[in-house]
Amino acid sequence: MKSGNAGLFYNMQAEIINIGDELLIGQVINTNASWIAEQFNLAGISINRITVIADEKESIINALNNAALQADIILITGGLGPTNDDITKKVLCDYFDSKLILNKDVLDDIQTYFHKRKFEVTSLNQQQAEVPDKCIPIRNYNGTAPGMWFERNNKIYISLPGVPFEMKALISDYVLPEISKRFKLPVIIHKTILTQGVGESFLADKIINWENNLPEFIKLAYLPTPGLVRLRLSAKGNDKNILSKSIEDALNSLQTLISEYIYGYDEETLEEIIGNLLNQKKLTIATAESCTGGYIASRITSVPGSSAYFKGSIVCYSNEIKIQELNIPEQMIINHGAVSCEVAEAMAQSIRRKFDTQYSIAVTGIAGPDGGTNEKPVGTVWISIATPSTIISEKFFFGDNRERNIQRTCITALNMLRKIILKNNS
Amino acid sequence: MKSGNAGLFYNMQAEIINIGDELLIGQVINTNASWIAEQFNLAGISINRITVIADEKESIINALNNAALQADIILITGGLGPTNDDITKKVLCDYFDSKLILNKDVLDDIQTYFHKRKFEVTSLNQQQAEVPDKCIPIRNYNGTAPGMWFERNNKIYISLPGVPFEMKALISDYVLPEISKRFKLPVIIHKTILTQGVGESFLADKIINWENNLPEFIKLAYLPTPGLVRLRLSAKGNDKNILSKSIEDALNSLQTLISEYIYGYDEETLEEIIGNLLNQKKLTIATAESCTGGYIASRITSVPGSSAYFKGSIVCYSNEIKIQELNIPEQMIINHGAVSCEVAEAMAQSIRRKFDTQYSIAVTGIAGPDGGTNEKPVGTVWISIATPSTIISEKFFFGDNRERNIQRTCITALNMLRKIILKNNS
Repeated sequence: MKSGNAGLFYNMQAEIINIGDELLIGQVINTNASWIAEQFNLAGISINRITVIADEKESIINALNNAALQADIILITGGLGPTNDDITKKVLCDYFDSKLILNKDVLDDIQTYFHKRKFEVTSLNQQQAEVPDKCIPIRNYNGTAPGMWFERNNKIYISLPGVPFEMKALISDYVLPEISKRFKLPVIIHKTILTQGVGESFLADKIINWENNLPEFIKLAYLPTPGLVRLRLSAKGNDKNILSKSIEDALNSLQTLISEYIYGYDEETLEEIIGNLLNQKKLTIATAESCTGGYIASRITSVPGSSAYFKGSIVCYSNEIKIQELNIPEQMIINHGAVSCEVAEAMAQSIRRKFDTQYSIAVTGIAGPDGGTNEKPVGTVWISIATPSTIISEKFFFGDNRERNIQRTCITALNMLRKIILKNNS
Repeated sequence: MKSGNAGLFYNMQAEIINIGDELLIGQVINTNASWIAEQFNLAGISINRITVIADEKESIINALNNAALQADIILITGGLGPTNDDITKKVLCDYFDSKLILNKDVLDDIQTYFHKRKFEVTSLNQQQAEVPDKCIPIRNYNGTAPGMWFERNNKIYISLPGVPFEMKALISDYVLPEISKRFKLPVIIHKTILTQGVGESFLADKIINWENNLPEFIKLAYLPTPGLVRLRLSAKGNDKNILSKSIEDALNSLQTLISEYIYGYDEETLEEIIGNLLNQKKLTIATAESCTGGYIASRITSVPGSSAYFKGSIVCYSNEIKIQELNIPEQMIINHGAVSCEVAEAMAQSIRRKFDTQYSIAVTGIAGPDGGTNEKPVGTVWISIATPSTIISEKFFFGDNRERNIQRTCITALNMLRKIILKNNS
């Protein structure tokens, strides 16, 4: 592996090898590979191949040999569990003519891990503290299998557990920082623009001229998920200042085109953005949820520290509970239906008063697959946001997929709340 | 490729090659590979490798050469679009010393496809009707790129578009039926056992003798996710009856060893299992949630039809709401803390009475990252299940990751509920 010339970055190539029969029978979708690929690309390292193989010695050795022909870094996940079907450590030990030795630090980590959870350390787990003597163990604070870092013939081989959150922590906290320390990687600057309330093709139409005028070293990618479209700008080169300036210019002109759809940037989530806003302005919130069944509350409370502004929720899945807990007049439900502007607004006002908060979100809709009518098809949702001075309601049609309806309702409601907080407190 | 002897299946091996830059930068998760792998396995064809590569001639040829060393069938997806970055057809044409000729049937298909949609056929699309003369074109009625079937040295090479619904139709309607017609494939039977409340290594310790006594044609895999471990048995052979009987025997003896941890089988989820139980027994449920912030309610309501048994939830994120909405005595919180058996039980009883349900779930805990003490570290959770006749409570330590604490609390609570329903109604 050669480092880059002065001033020139080294175009480093990596290969991902995912080991696991569950991937080859289609039981598990390989989200590890896409996450790793994204993180490595963000750090300036290209992925030239992803190979998925079985927990089999010959397949593993074959994959390592093939990868070494064209990659500088070989990143291996999976097969490090304590059970018999996990053979990666043993194969790597043989492959690097190494022998297993007990590592005291790793054993400590494993014992700490189990003591925290009040579990007994089994002998199988103790064996996980044995690592090949020719590797640098990478300590894993979220599980029992350490990562392993080998080097041979100017190639780096990194083996990590396949459990996603363990693997992710090891890559973010150790692997990428360590690689960046040792090699001059290209400067890559990303800026992700988060949009809501606009479809991908409509967005593309709106910004086509802007896109065509981007400098050649800036690439644009569309990343749609239900309810959101993320736009990612990536600039790659040597000079950080030039790249930053170009991204900033591109961003400024984009903002003038689509400002009404932008809710945030980069890794922010809507629930974090709202949490920060509520914290800054010392406001509180509650939700009253019908079709989302508590999903909005669970997204809001996924943010650490949300207890500072979130008081709670009433999930009123049945009309009986809407009437009893939120004082929705039965006649209102009879006259307008549970999925109506009237009921949504009554829910929002009731929960705001009852939970004594400044703001509230209420949603009522038909998540599906059943319950739709001609007038109110599956996917019909009313969202109301109540504030100290006003109430804002809107009707949406989110289509016929239950899971997506719930997600879209949540994202749309959170973004309505964000806009109203900004408007009221600007 | 040799066909199987009479009575003996041929152990056919396939490799999947997915072509596309979007997969290598992590922009798209490779759901095509898992879908194809599942379908091929169900048909009795093993996948021995999945390789993801760029839209690059050298990479494609390299992957084809590697695959031919170990697979009978090489299934290629992607790179068949009409634009310049799609080069798969051209590369395959060269690879098989073939030349492109216009195929009238394919041209008809493309014209029909566009006419139906009232679009003009562009010259780029017309070019898609040109196929290599050494392949059998596979007609695509859902898009514009035909599939291609090549054979050389007893290997089959199949190239399909990467658009999921086009690819899926071509595999289901043509590729698998055609392979099954030509080869005697084995029978493969899978059974997945779903367990909760036991770690992977503890489980492995408990069933090691059973595992060692499995017949050679049955394989065992451990598939852990937060709070759950799935065990998958796979049997492969000629005789469906023998395989089914062997899986059944293995399952029976496993059940006697770990019955208390098994909550279901195959693709079931805990929330579906509970939903079915509640429906069968005509019971209703509500939740009172502190640390899970509505997550349990959102899992329960992710099941279509859950409104038949789920009435709602009170998410009492603040103590104020616990006192006001669930009538928890303030003195109880002062004396025992909000995270205590006393408060969990009072929450469970209160929500059950208030929402007039047979069962209720209540949880109170410290999700983290802050809020822990020496006595009650982050991850301490009390779960209570109230029933018409009794209340059952348990304390857990789920570790220091907020997201996983919430997931594990939910799964554990749902499984406690399942056990209690079964016990009370057996």
